[in-house]
Amino acid sequence: MSSITNPIVEQLLNHRSIRHFKNKKLTDAQIDELIEAAQHASTSTFSQQYSIISVTDRHVLEEFAKITGHPWLLESAHYFVMVADQYRNLQIAKAQNADPFLLHTTDKFLASVFDASIATENIMVAAESMGLGATIMGSILNDSKKIINLLGLPQLTFPLLGIAIGYPDDQPELKPRLPKEEIYFQERYQLPADQTALQQYDQLLQAYYQNRSSNSRDETFTHHITSEVNRGHHIRADLLNNIQSQGFLVAQTKD
Amino acid sequence: MSSITNPIVEQLLNHRSIRHFKNKKLTDAQIDELIEAAQHASTSTFSQQYSIISVTDRHVLEEFAKITGHPWLLESAHYFVMVADQYRNLQIAKAQNADPFLLHTTDKFLASVFDASIATENIMVAAESMGLGATIMGSILNDSKKIINLLGLPQLTFPLLGIAIGYPDDQPELKPRLPKEEIYFQERYQLPADQTALQQYDQLLQAYYQNRSSNSRDETFTHHITSEVNRGHHIRADLLNNIQSQGFLVAQTKD
Repeated sequence: MSSITNPIVEQLLNHRSIRHFKNKKLTDAQIDELIEAAQHASTSTFSQQYSIISVTDRHVLEEFAKITGHPWLLESAHYFVMVADQYRNLQIAKAQNADPFLLHTTDKFLASVFDASIATENIMVAAESMGLGATIMGSILNDSKKIINLLGLPQLTFPLLGIAIGYPDDQPELKPRLPKEEIYFQERYQLPADQTALQQYDQLLQAYYQNRSSNSRDETFTHHITSEVNRGHHIRADLLNNIQSQGFLVAQTKD
Repeated sequence: MSSITNPIVEQLLNHRSIRHFKNKKLTDAQIDELIEAAQHASTSTFSQQYSIISVTDRHVLEEFAKITGHPWLLESAHYFVMVADQYRNLQIAKAQNADPFLLHTTDKFLASVFDASIATENIMVAAESMGLGATIMGSILNDSKKIINLLGLPQLTFPLLGIAIGYPDDQPELKPRLPKEEIYFQERYQLPADQTALQQYDQLLQAYYQNRSSNSRDETFTHHITSEVNRGHHIRADLLNNIQSQGFLVAQTKD
């Protein structure tokens, strides 16, 4: 553990996902501040290729709870959906009579995912600095088609991540991360030659899961990953098709 | 502009990409702190599906400068590459005799992109809090195949973003972002019905580009987007193939 040099790094190192919230809403000023923080993140080629949608309608949030399998999101104070968005730039290109082909490519889809994800983390950092807690929810992709319908998402947009935010009603223990040598390399990709670091991490994470104050269980990292891959070939099997149906990832030739 | 409630939000709102650096290296402790900050970001299903590679070899960085078209990266104090990584988890799955199919899916590729991008923003936020400046570089994707070779990236990994970091040697003006109504919606996707907000933004951005202290030019947002799409159908035409060659985005059936 390196010495922490300032309060911002200290906050980053103290991040935990919050899934229990007090019954207190955010103010419009707080929401504005979160959006502003998101907007000031870097975007690829400064093309601002994402959008943010606030979902407050209880019936829609109940659909989100079903899709994600996480009913606790209904207790959050505010819910954002981060959307990959080339549709806005498509309108601009069309108005200028420009050929919009590139907006449909893998490159521009990836750029949108970068932009939305990076903006997501700014919302997380801003929220935590304001005394709020949050969880990023990739589980909206369990039924991306339904999310697309619920939010009225046009061509060249795609829902990526939900963010459930509110005033924390618990303080989970910090979850240990992979040993640095498993995730950080010099010059070239090089996992450690032996399994020692990973085995020690398994023990560390097992102790965390056993000792944490709620939802304790017997679990290691290697077992967690194995469970993840064992969920079956059908998991989110329509995701690639749904992304392509929205107009992304078109075939592209070098000519 | 909402009122800024704390120094962390203030920093986020003051972000600017730094491309001019003083001739001063980072210490190992600083680099460790940036890696730690990255590792403490959220990851999808806590699967930590990314890796970070430090590139310091001058010859390799010169290749990066050629690929990205940004020779100023050679003046940065430190260079990271953020890598989508399911290879580490593939080794874990294999060691447990688990079927690794899901790691090859669109879903897990997207999860890796989320993880790497979110960790990228933590590095940016941490760097700025330490008095450093940085630029995220998607331009490494100009030749992803070559980056893969330079970094020795195995199957189920893919290079996504570079980060050039150092002590700022300039202070660019803050670049105005899209009007909120163009990027933030309530309940459903809904761009403004008229072009007023966008036209005003064009004027705002034009004034920014004309008045900034260096690299001033005549440019609007709509013109910038039009230039982007007019670069030709061949732009990064091999990207989808290169991602698939690394083992990602496999076809998947619902059965």
